[in-house]
Amino acid sequence: MTKTFSSTDDIRSGGELRHARQAVFAGPIQLQLGGVLPAVTCVYETWGELNADASNAVLVCHAISGDSHAARHGDDDDPGWWDGLIGPGKDLDTRRFFVVCPNILGGCRGSTGPSDIDPASDPPRPFGADFPRITIGDMVEVQRRLAEHLGIARWRAVVGGSLGGHQALTWAAQHPRMLETCVAIASSPRLTAQALGFDVIARNAIQTDPNFAGGQYYNQPARPDTGLAIARMLGHITYLSRKSMKEKFDADRHDPRSIASVFEQQFSVGSYLAHQGQKFTERFDANSYVTLSMAMDLFDLGEHRLMLMETFDESQCDFLIVSFSSDWLFTPSQSCDIVNALVALDKPVTYSEITSEAGHDAFLIDEDIAKYGPLVAAQLNRPGLRQRNPEATSTAEVTRAERAILDLIPRGASVLDLGCGDGKLLEILHHRGHSRVMGVDVAQRHLLEAASRGLDVIDYDLNQGLPAFIDNQFDIVVLKFTLQAVSNVASLFDEMLRVGRQAIVSFANFAHRSLREDYVTRGRSPRAPGEYDYEWHDTPNRRFPSILDVQEFCRERDVTICRAVYLDQQRDCQIEPDDEPNLNADTAVFLLARDN
Amino acid sequence: MTKTFSSTDDIRSGGELRHARQAVFAGPIQLQLGGVLPAVTCVYETWGELNADASNAVLVCHAISGDSHAARHGDDDDPGWWDGLIGPGKDLDTRRFFVVCPNILGGCRGSTGPSDIDPASDPPRPFGADFPRITIGDMVEVQRRLAEHLGIARWRAVVGGSLGGHQALTWAAQHPRMLETCVAIASSPRLTAQALGFDVIARNAIQTDPNFAGGQYYNQPARPDTGLAIARMLGHITYLSRKSMKEKFDADRHDPRSIASVFEQQFSVGSYLAHQGQKFTERFDANSYVTLSMAMDLFDLGEHRLMLMETFDESQCDFLIVSFSSDWLFTPSQSCDIVNALVALDKPVTYSEITSEAGHDAFLIDEDIAKYGPLVAAQLNRPGLRQRNPEATSTAEVTRAERAILDLIPRGASVLDLGCGDGKLLEILHHRGHSRVMGVDVAQRHLLEAASRGLDVIDYDLNQGLPAFIDNQFDIVVLKFTLQAVSNVASLFDEMLRVGRQAIVSFANFAHRSLREDYVTRGRSPRAPGEYDYEWHDTPNRRFPSILDVQEFCRERDVTICRAVYLDQQRDCQIEPDDEPNLNADTAVFLLARDN
Repeated sequence: MTKTFSSTDDIRSGGELRHARQAVFAGPIQLQLGGVLPAVTCVYETWGELNADASNAVLVCHAISGDSHAARHGDDDDPGWWDGLIGPGKDLDTRRFFVVCPNILGGCRGSTGPSDIDPASDPPRPFGADFPRITIGDMVEVQRRLAEHLGIARWRAVVGGSLGGHQALTWAAQHPRMLETCVAIASSPRLTAQALGFDVIARNAIQTDPNFAGGQYYNQPARPDTGLAIARMLGHITYLSRKSMKEKFDADRHDPRSIASVFEQQFSVGSYLAHQGQKFTERFDANSYVTLSMAMDLFDLGEHRLMLMETFDESQCDFLIVSFSSDWLFTPSQSCDIVNALVALDKPVTYSEITSEAGHDAFLIDEDIAKYGPLVAAQLNRPGLRQRNPEATSTAEVTRAERAILDLIPRGASVLDLGCGDGKLLEILHHRGHSRVMGVDVAQRHLLEAASRGLDVIDYDLNQGLPAFIDNQFDIVVLKFTLQAVSNVASLFDEMLRVGRQAIVSFANFAHRSLREDYVTRGRSPRAPGEYDYEWHDTPNRRFPSILDVQEFCRERDVTICRAVYLDQQRDCQIEPDDEPNLNADTAVFLLARDN
Repeated sequence: MTKTFSSTDDIRSGGELRHARQAVFAGPIQLQLGGVLPAVTCVYETWGELNADASNAVLVCHAISGDSHAARHGDDDDPGWWDGLIGPGKDLDTRRFFVVCPNILGGCRGSTGPSDIDPASDPPRPFGADFPRITIGDMVEVQRRLAEHLGIARWRAVVGGSLGGHQALTWAAQHPRMLETCVAIASSPRLTAQALGFDVIARNAIQTDPNFAGGQYYNQPARPDTGLAIARMLGHITYLSRKSMKEKFDADRHDPRSIASVFEQQFSVGSYLAHQGQKFTERFDANSYVTLSMAMDLFDLGEHRLMLMETFDESQCDFLIVSFSSDWLFTPSQSCDIVNALVALDKPVTYSEITSEAGHDAFLIDEDIAKYGPLVAAQLNRPGLRQRNPEATSTAEVTRAERAILDLIPRGASVLDLGCGDGKLLEILHHRGHSRVMGVDVAQRHLLEAASRGLDVIDYDLNQGLPAFIDNQFDIVVLKFTLQAVSNVASLFDEMLRVGRQAIVSFANFAHRSLREDYVTRGRSPRAPGEYDYEWHDTPNRRFPSILDVQEFCRERDVTICRAVYLDQQRDCQIEPDDEPNLNADTAVFLLARDN
């Protein structure tokens, strides 16, 4: 049933899919939108070895114009489209994992698609436009059969970018017990109306090409290459950011590369698009493009959070969601929609928006793979990292204020740490047996550090509120030494006490004796060791609260200070409540709750 | 030579151009790229009356798919594309101004274009694709001949949006003495590589349509409607913002309007695009679209500031530049490129980035016209506003600190006011005879107020530096009571003393007695009347400098404090330098210069 597959299709450096194998699944196979396929062929490639209990298999899902050749199989092999991520010793390490990448249903690289002969036709002819309408769910169903065929009951992870991310998310939603980890990169719950509009135009260009001939062009002298090339040109613009196009094409704008083409040759960007469009027609089938693009456009995990929560309600895997700042096709805010739903469901999820100028294509670019690849590695390393180690709960390396915070957290409480930094505090809580701890930060370095400790961590700017979280989701929400940099304090307090039953806020006391003395004697913007040790013109701080200020603020906003710990961190001692903490304490830690 | 023009073209509500007239200019007319036209017809509409000295004529330039019908001529007339701006009592007031809007060269609404008969052909046939390649400069040359024909030696203003803005800018660059004011809305110095790419695809769709027939389709049974419709669909997406498309199409995404169409009917956005595309083919000529879109793509005022400065070096008009925050086709940063060049050339320019979700189309939408229209009116009212009135130089209504600032400004000095607010201070300087005063602000309300005083004012965030300005461009740069809200103080000081020979900085002294007393006695984040009268958690301030702080800061950065004025604004008196200003003054005003 499994044999070496050979193709004469021209792909990238002219290589064939030398390492591909194929599996054939007997039908009839019922499709989600009502169609039926008599049988399905699935062509795939693999890297590494499946281990004895089949627990190390990772499914890699490709995007609309990709194929099974995700990585090279040896030094003499053609490069794969995800060579930067997949290989021996790489972030998706083929020495540890058995990686499987199938060509998707509906494509034109060996797996069943519109260019195959329709067995029901007489005389025999390709499906063409009669190929039944398929969904991402149908693609996933073929992958599920492949897993069965390979003896894999459960994927260690399903990983994909763009349309590949849609497949990974569909796995998590439709086969909740069949994967441990879902990694969706540059993905979305569904297309924006804008992206949908571009796809509609691309399909219109193909289907109105006179050579399209209703999809039965295979035996004709000419194929709908013009329409397919125009579709591809349009796709290319949406994969790049405006800035990356400027860098690519502005220097030699009026100096196009001379190529043989039916298309306009006026500008450098024009000759580039013509080249990309024409090259694409040599390796891609127009009916496949229409089929896959329609499947992507029909993909819809839900418009609103409630619908997305329903979609992922049964999911049992953990999630890594990655977006790119300059991706305007599948925008960061769309990834956030997924993250917000998962967080509200209390699913384990890590999210990072990678800063990149490369647009949607960033997920394929080595420079950006170097940024998000370590997050993939950390996610795959999690099971080992997350084993509880009671010896790792020492507070020897934390500050007195952090110890005070830890002491205020009830045993076993669920904890959200806003501005979690490297995640040290959450890691201690995890090893102490807290079952649900989560961090929020905005620095990519911190996100990676925290993720590398096996923690769930979300890339959010606190000044945008806490939209990801539902009411009373955590027992405790922690804000440690961040108050002085928050732009909207009142709404953040509201959010903390909406999301948490209680909140812990630690802050440096601006009315501490050392600051007052410095201010009065020097007549300068006050400075003292710690959070306020900055020049007036170069400080990240924008709020200067004293203990009395925060007390009054809580009183005015119906917030109870359940417990208060006052510290002189300089002298490494605690200040008693009757010892004028507003003068003598440089630090305060408050446990807060909403008045009933 | 002038006669009533009647057209059977279907445009908007089926109306013809009932009020259009035409002028015919005998040739041969030499085009900028080497072609020749034997003669040119120009169809145009007018509103209002030309006054006796022909000084009230305003030229309105339309965009790629627009025409001469910019506004209705009466209650029974079809609405025009700029009815929101143009009419009796509107911002472009046809009771005061004689407004002229011609159809552009190369179009298909009566002015000479590719669908006209080529007089050199035998047998006679339309130009088609043989229509010579034209530029925006050629369109402007026809408009110049029209001005001559109408007896207008100099336009009071040339106003346009999008491609119309390109025409207005070209007027300013190529005919510097023939206009008083240039208004360029949603415009750019040239297209981004991204926008260029979309245009290339649109032309490819038209020119590869088999019915295009090399442009000679006029006598054929079918025209290249499919290609033209696809071009228009693509255009439509680029005119809208992602957010406006979401609002338009997401609610009924899977519920398309049922229309008769050769195009896909799957999604609501698809039926909308199909409708727009098809409707366009009923009123537009494919050869015209190719001709005009190529003229736009060839338009290039310069890539860098130096090139743009060369372009506008001879300009004698004042400029109003307007962009829209969500316009991703002609981006705000492209408008800034123009503004930066004009400012560096010391040309009178006002710039505003209007906050809008409507994308590029914002310039046509009443809601946004209501935001930028008053700026157009202010610009047209300028000559009256800007007459000097010595009686308007009273400082009765300014604060003591503002009087101190005014006193520090040498007679006749050129002044840049950063954070100019409503422009009151600059207006006083203007009436005192200062020939060059300019404001910078970020609040749209302030920009309009300052512009309504006849001032040049630029919409810039100070925290991005002062890229518009060249070294030593102004005698004095003023920063009044903004220091406490600046995010990067050091680089702003550097910028101020790069752009100005001297700088005046006024600020509230954080070490003033009242704040110290408040701080020490209350133990709270200090408050006092004035700039520091905010709650700690709700203040726009993020810097808290004392007089000593700013003095030291200047010393460290090689900045000389040439003069210092210390004030107690609460008690309305001046504090002498030997009377402990850091304790007794609530306000300081420094005149600064870079050390030599």
